[in-house]
Amino acid sequence: MNLDRPCESDLIDWISRHTQHFPSSIIKNIGDDCAVFDPRFTPRLAVTTDMLLEDVHFRRRWISPYFLGRKSLAVNLSDLAAVGAVPYACLLSLALPPDLTPDYFHSFMKGFLEEGACWHAPLIGGDLSRSEKIYVSVTAWGSLEAGDPVWRSQGQDGDKVVLVGEIGLARVGLEILQQEDPSQIWKINSENKLAQWAGDSFRYRCLKAHLLPKALVQVGSWLCRNRLANAMIDISDGLASDLFHIACQSQLVAEIEVEQLPLPEQAIGQLDPLEAALNGGEDHALIFTASQEQLDRLSSSYPTNFPPYRVIGKLSGGEPSLYLKRKGKQEKYEPRGFNHFR
Amino acid sequence: MNLDRPCESDLIDWISRHTQHFPSSIIKNIGDDCAVFDPRFTPRLAVTTDMLLEDVHFRRRWISPYFLGRKSLAVNLSDLAAVGAVPYACLLSLALPPDLTPDYFHSFMKGFLEEGACWHAPLIGGDLSRSEKIYVSVTAWGSLEAGDPVWRSQGQDGDKVVLVGEIGLARVGLEILQQEDPSQIWKINSENKLAQWAGDSFRYRCLKAHLLPKALVQVGSWLCRNRLANAMIDISDGLASDLFHIACQSQLVAEIEVEQLPLPEQAIGQLDPLEAALNGGEDHALIFTASQEQLDRLSSSYPTNFPPYRVIGKLSGGEPSLYLKRKGKQEKYEPRGFNHFR
Repeated sequence: MNLDRPCESDLIDWISRHTQHFPSSIIKNIGDDCAVFDPRFTPRLAVTTDMLLEDVHFRRRWISPYFLGRKSLAVNLSDLAAVGAVPYACLLSLALPPDLTPDYFHSFMKGFLEEGACWHAPLIGGDLSRSEKIYVSVTAWGSLEAGDPVWRSQGQDGDKVVLVGEIGLARVGLEILQQEDPSQIWKINSENKLAQWAGDSFRYRCLKAHLLPKALVQVGSWLCRNRLANAMIDISDGLASDLFHIACQSQLVAEIEVEQLPLPEQAIGQLDPLEAALNGGEDHALIFTASQEQLDRLSSSYPTNFPPYRVIGKLSGGEPSLYLKRKGKQEKYEPRGFNHFR
Repeated sequence: MNLDRPCESDLIDWISRHTQHFPSSIIKNIGDDCAVFDPRFTPRLAVTTDMLLEDVHFRRRWISPYFLGRKSLAVNLSDLAAVGAVPYACLLSLALPPDLTPDYFHSFMKGFLEEGACWHAPLIGGDLSRSEKIYVSVTAWGSLEAGDPVWRSQGQDGDKVVLVGEIGLARVGLEILQQEDPSQIWKINSENKLAQWAGDSFRYRCLKAHLLPKALVQVGSWLCRNRLANAMIDISDGLASDLFHIACQSQLVAEIEVEQLPLPEQAIGQLDPLEAALNGGEDHALIFTASQEQLDRLSSSYPTNFPPYRVIGKLSGGEPSLYLKRKGKQEKYEPRGFNHFR
């Protein structure tokens, strides 16, 4: 890495100087062989890890380093939200090609640390390397203040399927980016600049969904704390794929009512809005399942500052599978969400 | 990945079926958005993460997938040993190119899971992806039964520097591999086969040091529990570099007595044994610092089944730096250990 030829310890020093407040249960952070935390001060911990690889999960020309830094942590925080955990701390493994400038590293780290600061999830350690392509791997912990998390496998026969957040927009955002001049995208390193550059509000919502996903941490932990969700998952591969995970792990049939889906309002290029909503992926919305009793409690207590929820389907008994219901007719559906190995 | 075109969930299922016993404090492992553990059942936890990237940390033709699996976990367990922690659980992020066969994946996982089973460190989660090159990132936790870990920064003026384990052999092992037929190396997937293939015992020790490093977990946790080490680090970059880390973080001068170093007994090719010992790296030996009082206690209680220790230098007051002492003369030394960014 051509950061004026620094050594790894220079980069670690830079990170150490820019990290944030640590909770007292983290007794050692960056700079030794291990970080150490003292779990006597915390409730149960959830942990997750997700990779973002150049030319697999993203292309360098369509995302600025600042947004890549934010997004690489946000996708992990979305997994924490999906079990009802509140972000607690994170680790970063980052490998960068030698042709990138020091600005790239600093801008990536700025995004990563800002995202962590939003959620009080300090960076407590990691690993740095050179590489041929950009490689990011993040591990994130969350604390489960309610004790029991929400699993994918606890959906109940008769539950409704509920969606919080938007679907398909991230996929439309990618489509928009692919039609743009990469040299412009590179410079966009704040939400304000993105809004200016996007122009109209639909484009802005789509670009933001793709570049700057927001983990629904407060929603997930509120649902968990109030025992309003039986099963929950975040949408990373696509609504259809991820609901299918709930169906398989809960051993039930899942049905999506197409008329209830919030589809992207505009088509972009050849992209079908329903296809984007079902299989686009990277939405980082939450889907959960709830009984009628839970839905009644939900409707009377759902915080007004949360994104709206909507019932989009149901679970019922039978061989694990996924169905779409359209104009009163039900048809079996094979999810086509992102699969690395196809 | 051409694993008969499986999907990611097939691979995750395979891993789930092959994972081991979980301690009761791990209440959820593979298969949901997060793994969850209940820290009320554990002492303090240390956590570390290390990457192994193809063509940066290793070349595919010089290590079989079985050994790569074992090594990728072992290097993380060595970091745990260096703070005195006992392995508790791990996460694996693995990205594989599409040209690799199913055997590659299974053999890698066999090695990884066997290494974990040796140390009761079950795999509790991870992430899988395709990629252009093999990319492995591991996160490992260890429990600190003695409460306080051993840091790099707590070396004391007057401490002796003590080495446990061998140095330079891993570097010689790499030199040996580079002279061999890669098609043979690929097939070696057990310690016995390695011994047979290696021929004489020096070659075997070197190849084993490189391909199958053994984290000194018992030594590290024993030193920690008995308060016999003030500062400690494992040798990953090289003895000189890693002792220099202790010197810098403890704000002291470190001196190595060259005559006390256990050098590789044979030179291989152009490789100088002293250079291999000082800067070869990947030894995963431990260096720690101890007062005379601690050394006295060490010599009367050091378990006979541990690898021998030897005093190889000392710490003293002054500007943080590293010196070599040879034939009574002291000279300043710049570590040349592995630096990704030079």
